[in-house]
Amino acid sequence: MSDLLWQKPGVKVDARIQAFLAGEDVILDREFFLFDIEASRAHAEGLQQIGILDAQELEGLTRELAVLADDFRSGAFVLDERYEDGHSAIEARLIERLGDAGRRIHTGRSRNDQILVATRLWLKDRLARVAALCRESAEVALARAEAESTLPLPGYTHLQRAVVSSAGMWWAAWAEGFIDDALRARQTLAWVDANPLGSAAGYGVNLPLARDHTTQALGFGRMQLSAAYAQLSRGKFEMAAIEALSSALLDLRRLAWDLSLFTSAEFGFVALPAEYTTGSSIMPNKRNPDVIELMRASYSAAAAARTEIEQLLSLPSGYHRDLQFSKGAIFHAFGRGLAALELLPDLLRNLEWKPDAMRASLDPSMYATDLAVDLARQGVPFRDAYKQAADPALWGQGDPQRSLAARISPGAAADARLHVLRERLAALGD
Amino acid sequence: MSDLLWQKPGVKVDARIQAFLAGEDVILDREFFLFDIEASRAHAEGLQQIGILDAQELEGLTRELAVLADDFRSGAFVLDERYEDGHSAIEARLIERLGDAGRRIHTGRSRNDQILVATRLWLKDRLARVAALCRESAEVALARAEAESTLPLPGYTHLQRAVVSSAGMWWAAWAEGFIDDALRARQTLAWVDANPLGSAAGYGVNLPLARDHTTQALGFGRMQLSAAYAQLSRGKFEMAAIEALSSALLDLRRLAWDLSLFTSAEFGFVALPAEYTTGSSIMPNKRNPDVIELMRASYSAAAAARTEIEQLLSLPSGYHRDLQFSKGAIFHAFGRGLAALELLPDLLRNLEWKPDAMRASLDPSMYATDLAVDLARQGVPFRDAYKQAADPALWGQGDPQRSLAARISPGAAADARLHVLRERLAALGD
Amino acid sequence: MSDLLWQKPGVKVDARIQAFLAGEDVILDREFFLFDIEASRAHAEGLQQIGILDAQELEGLTRELAVLADDFRSGAFVLDERYEDGHSAIEARLIERLGDAGRRIHTGRSRNDQILVATRLWLKDRLARVAALCRESAEVALARAEAESTLPLPGYTHLQRAVVSSAGMWWAAWAEGFIDDALRARQTLAWVDANPLGSAAGYGVNLPLARDHTTQALGFGRMQLSAAYAQLSRGKFEMAAIEALSSALLDLRRLAWDLSLFTSAEFGFVALPAEYTTGSSIMPNKRNPDVIELMRASYSAAAAARTEIEQLLSLPSGYHRDLQFSKGAIFHAFGRGLAALELLPDLLRNLEWKPDAMRASLDPSMYATDLAVDLARQGVPFRDAYKQAADPALWGQGDPQRSLAARISPGAAADARLHVLRERLAALGD
Amino acid sequence: MSDLLWQKPGVKVDARIQAFLAGEDVILDREFFLFDIEASRAHAEGLQQIGILDAQELEGLTRELAVLADDFRSGAFVLDERYEDGHSAIEARLIERLGDAGRRIHTGRSRNDQILVATRLWLKDRLARVAALCRESAEVALARAEAESTLPLPGYTHLQRAVVSSAGMWWAAWAEGFIDDALRARQTLAWVDANPLGSAAGYGVNLPLARDHTTQALGFGRMQLSAAYAQLSRGKFEMAAIEALSSALLDLRRLAWDLSLFTSAEFGFVALPAEYTTGSSIMPNKRNPDVIELMRASYSAAAAARTEIEQLLSLPSGYHRDLQFSKGAIFHAFGRGLAALELLPDLLRNLEWKPDAMRASLDPSMYATDLAVDLARQGVPFRDAYKQAADPALWGQGDPQRSLAARISPGAAADARLHVLRERLAALGD
Repeated sequence: MSDLLWQKPGVKVDARIQAFLAGEDVILDREFFLFDIEASRAHAEGLQQIGILDAQELEGLTRELAVLADDFRSGAFVLDERYEDGHSAIEARLIERLGDAGRRIHTGRSRNDQILVATRLWLKDRLARVAALCRESAEVALARAEAESTLPLPGYTHLQRAVVSSAGMWWAAWAEGFIDDALRARQTLAWVDANPLGSAAGYGVNLPLARDHTTQALGFGRMQLSAAYAQLSRGKFEMAAIEALSSALLDLRRLAWDLSLFTSAEFGFVALPAEYTTGSSIMPNKRNPDVIELMRASYSAAAAARTEIEQLLSLPSGYHRDLQFSKGAIFHAFGRGLAALELLPDLLRNLEWKPDAMRASLDPSMYATDLAVDLARQGVPFRDAYKQAADPALWGQGDPQRSLAARISPGAAADARLHVLRERLAALGD
Repeated sequence: MSDLLWQKPGVKVDARIQAFLAGEDVILDREFFLFDIEASRAHAEGLQQIGILDAQELEGLTRELAVLADDFRSGAFVLDERYEDGHSAIEARLIERLGDAGRRIHTGRSRNDQILVATRLWLKDRLARVAALCRESAEVALARAEAESTLPLPGYTHLQRAVVSSAGMWWAAWAEGFIDDALRARQTLAWVDANPLGSAAGYGVNLPLARDHTTQALGFGRMQLSAAYAQLSRGKFEMAAIEALSSALLDLRRLAWDLSLFTSAEFGFVALPAEYTTGSSIMPNKRNPDVIELMRASYSAAAAARTEIEQLLSLPSGYHRDLQFSKGAIFHAFGRGLAALELLPDLLRNLEWKPDAMRASLDPSMYATDLAVDLARQGVPFRDAYKQAADPALWGQGDPQRSLAARISPGAAADARLHVLRERLAALGD
Repeated sequence: MSDLLWQKPGVKVDARIQAFLAGEDVILDREFFLFDIEASRAHAEGLQQIGILDAQELEGLTRELAVLADDFRSGAFVLDERYEDGHSAIEARLIERLGDAGRRIHTGRSRNDQILVATRLWLKDRLARVAALCRESAEVALARAEAESTLPLPGYTHLQRAVVSSAGMWWAAWAEGFIDDALRARQTLAWVDANPLGSAAGYGVNLPLARDHTTQALGFGRMQLSAAYAQLSRGKFEMAAIEALSSALLDLRRLAWDLSLFTSAEFGFVALPAEYTTGSSIMPNKRNPDVIELMRASYSAAAAARTEIEQLLSLPSGYHRDLQFSKGAIFHAFGRGLAALELLPDLLRNLEWKPDAMRASLDPSMYATDLAVDLARQGVPFRDAYKQAADPALWGQGDPQRSLAARISPGAAADARLHVLRERLAALGD
Repeated sequence: MSDLLWQKPGVKVDARIQAFLAGEDVILDREFFLFDIEASRAHAEGLQQIGILDAQELEGLTRELAVLADDFRSGAFVLDERYEDGHSAIEARLIERLGDAGRRIHTGRSRNDQILVATRLWLKDRLARVAALCRESAEVALARAEAESTLPLPGYTHLQRAVVSSAGMWWAAWAEGFIDDALRARQTLAWVDANPLGSAAGYGVNLPLARDHTTQALGFGRMQLSAAYAQLSRGKFEMAAIEALSSALLDLRRLAWDLSLFTSAEFGFVALPAEYTTGSSIMPNKRNPDVIELMRASYSAAAAARTEIEQLLSLPSGYHRDLQFSKGAIFHAFGRGLAALELLPDLLRNLEWKPDAMRASLDPSMYATDLAVDLARQGVPFRDAYKQAADPALWGQGDPQRSLAARISPGAAADARLHVLRERLAALGD
């Protein structure tokens, strides 16, 4: 490892302990690196505004930060165990290239606010992607809800056949679900959109840092004011971001469950394109819907990340090294969660219904509720109508189209109000 | 137990199994009962609008629902094991008092949407209380931040003395934290503010239910449109509400940790009024800050509730009885969480600093960072200044007031911008 | 509330704060009360052995503790909000009845070790019940495995039809699973079987307490020696006990999932007696397998309890009031978990297969693996055999009985070795 | 990627979907690779015993598996994205080197039992390391308990000074704690010590696999009999192993908390060697006990892993791809947990007490409990003695050595019975 920023002459360093301390920090910092560079540029601009850097130094730093970003993207610069962490790597590179200008970049900041600001920028980026993927999934679902409103599908409660439903009603559910999820991601993005840069180690510094500038330059919605609160919010904002991701993944889990059942031979309602399936190493006959199962399982990473972070947050105020472990947790959650969400819109586009099997699974009992309500409409008190309609002799054969056409409660098959969902979707913007 | 709504002649019922099924349902439904009555009134109004009830029937139902609410509040009506659940109890009472009008109340609804709407109303009420208590706590913290801005307090990182801080900076952190928490509760309240009543068992009904009316009458911000999504959102909204509560409780946990340390003999920075402490059964000398410890521990109920609900949500779409267990979880989380938050504003008002101990814990090393930054301001590159300032010989005695007065970065002691926090607090409304 | 044990003259008590502190403590202590009485008796015996009590005092205490236990069981004594907790209630009652002998009962103990010992006794009792119910469930499963070894059942992976299986293989899986669960509960019971009584507040006392006597009298396997460790192990033993319970509930969850699918119309492999199902408030046609769903959901309480306790355990050594919240968590987990396990043996006895549906779900592809292995046995390298056997033309109609009869790998249909499982079950004792 | 084992001619493969499916599988399989090779050798031996392989083929497979293991260890063979997973890599290598013998290695097994057996072997190895590190830590703690039995240390409850304790009592607590943890790891190791190899895809095969041989050759304590249970136990055994690890990490968390307080300036009881601390990037004066904080935080990985796996286990019986995600979870938990435990024995050896600060923190109130008990011994009923001893006028100056010498309850300072702990430690073996 290169020299440690804080190393003092004559103080012993133990390689095994240093390895434990470093852990995966520098590897994890790769995720944040470009955001850290971006924030370093804004910080340098602020330092120039308050006279710590001159114009030439700022120009040098700005240029070298851009070069470093390019080198990182191209692989010419590799962030690895030579550095204690990404922050140290940036400072070391700037010193190597620029000398004193590099030695000035850390004036008025701490690695504490450096990681905070990079984390906030990263979370904003990821939440925007969650929102976009939910919107796109909702868009697909809504289009199919409009197109397939009259295709009958058995409706279940308790996995028991209940009443006639339709593919359209099924799609509309997911459309509304993913609209809500996009909304939640948006809300949460707005909530985490606060700039901690300039809070230093949690107590500010004796310099008039240009925090208004960095807030604006980095595109933050507001400044995190209290230097101590910037530290206190470590983990707390991450928890909220994971919750927003989880909301989408909860819906994905239940959607994947439906598809897991619907693609079984016993239900047989859905066909998946072959590229969504895999084979077995021993059973020549198998085509398995692994994609659906891994989508279903993706929620677990978000749940784990939340558990991991909340376990760290039983601490007094101020920074503690424990908090470092929050980094890996958010990468794990968003890495796995976004990988699943990214495949979702195409999966929704590509799945094919098998109408014959769907129709064959409708049975006469599924019209009993219609019958009870019809009796109630004719004046029989519902509780009595319910008892009368329990008689199988009255169920007849039933007609799924007639059942769907009569389902006129708002939000049901015959009054689905998909235009309202479309308006809500449009209101989310791009 | 009274007759089961769905019981059919000749079907065996096993008492032990019924006890397992009932569980604590009817007891838990006490929490929801008044909201269930309120939603039943709105549903009855809607039924009258579409001709299922006549005006006289509606008048009877409205009256008897009000009487039932009064009886429940006064204890004249006890919701207990005589009923399968709260929903059945309402219907049974209305039938008992009104005959056929009572037998009509359940037309077009299911216990499925009945519990959903009662849950939404309950969550809205609780989130509003979370928001209000966070606002009140922020108000107290902000007032004390203004009043105690120059009282020195050691600032720590890693529980090691770091730089001079102040009581004012400590209070400002909590003020900003609880403002953010109130904001999160508000966002979340808006997100859950959707009316599921009229979605029946998840597939709507063959009646033009007056869902616009019930949405407005119950004060909801929007209608949950898709009948199937209403069911799918069971648990998902609860998770979001718990997350908002958790945000406040995470801050409370760290605040309680500070107070737990500050009230120890070793730190000795804070005195608690005697009524916040308890004694020991064996040690005559003890006064223990149990209130603080239980506040710290309250987060655990919210974490548990989230775990409990998310374990239930690995299911296909449609209602499943598993979801019933989400009720106890939200009561546990909000019951314990609100109990802790309700004591917080007074605790913040009543805690007393011990300035002598605070001052005695400032040591010369805590001025080293000021010195390094001063050197940087004078032109020494920071990384060199840092090395120079590590020399204890340069630290001198230091003056906390001077250190605080020089801390001019925005959000630090000398530029705390408390008026901005006050504006944010005011923007939250009441 | 009655007088507080530790109350000092002139110290203000705040009713709202006291209510917060008390919480549900005294209600929860009902679960522990008989164990607390039992441990109090052993403690009194120990005090007599070291001369703190005389023979007459011991006799009085022993008698009154027995009376209190009877009164509690009969309802003549109600443990309620009049007392700070169960411990205080016992002491108050003994003082009321016996005067000074009652005032001596708490010599050398603290409520800290009092709750520890009651908790250990309670956990041992509950773990023994978990073990017994797992054994009984395994017994039923094993008997049915023996009886139904040749009844064909489709075998699935990824919910896709894979190879022919049998009811016997399905039952054997659960038999072995619940044997392992019983074993885990036994191991864990042995691990928690350590006596903390006599550790006082975590630092022992200046009395030669007869801890060997109480260890033996209460039936503990060993003494928890270190007084400080007795406190440190609060929560840690509870976590292990919940894990052992969870092991059984994980199996129950997957078993319930199988039954949830198998009782669907689409699979249709299993019929449940009517008493295991419930109806709908709106759909006259429904019979829902709620019992199975609540069994499946029961794991969530154990998961929640573990989360709740582990959130409390980020603390320095010594007692902290936070730990009090571990009580409700274990009641919730074992309460719900045992309620589900108690219904399991009868459910397993009573479920009926529907052989026609099972047979109808076997399709020719399910013999492809047999074919590949047959080819391998005849000398074709398996990877080549696998490719050949993928050809549907070779599958033929297949014969489930022949497939099962040829499944001779140990643990498969034709060499199930159920006698080994029976031996393992017998080795668990009663 | 190399050819997929199960790929069929003409079936489309989508690169993006394959990347999602592969995930980190092949990278994670590096952890298991040597165990997978070991199990492959045993499986080959079994195949030779039943005539699928001849002696020469077995010899070739055995040799090439050994070469592969060497190449993997040396880095000459890299397991990377060229392979679908580690299992495919082994088979591909054997086919490349040996032709038909390689094509025969997979006869009678599935990747399903291949991953199961590798996981069991890996878990056994890791649990043995947990047990060994707990034993070593207990050994150090016990030795220091013996050596430092008379060094006074304040005893706390609620972080408030309670009674006089000693360094010896503090060490004895950790000694007993880590002995229990080693015992738990041992129990759990015995529980997971069951051989799933030969269960194939969960339904066995039509071959008389030599499962008794592989069970013995791989050193397993017993055979997992039921082929279906082998699949069902996926995740369940992992959960138990994580719980055993967690038990040690819970103790480590509380130990680290003590050290975090004790190394603060305010307590000042402990000095850490410099190599256990790090510096700050901005504050020249800081030396922070990061090692202790990361030890404290290590529990979070185990908690996260448990959450991650349990979220996956709400499934019907049989294999599902969801279960694949359990691999990363156990690596994360044991990777981080063992890294922390490995530093523990040396940390315990190296930490130094600061006796002056410890003594200075004893105050007269800490003798009040001794006094109350003394009065009780002299005949004053304890509840009265407690009230008398609350009077500060009676406390005097106190003498810590006398207080410790009088603490004669078993497990307290004057009757610590460390020899019993030493016997328990010895009984754990090596």
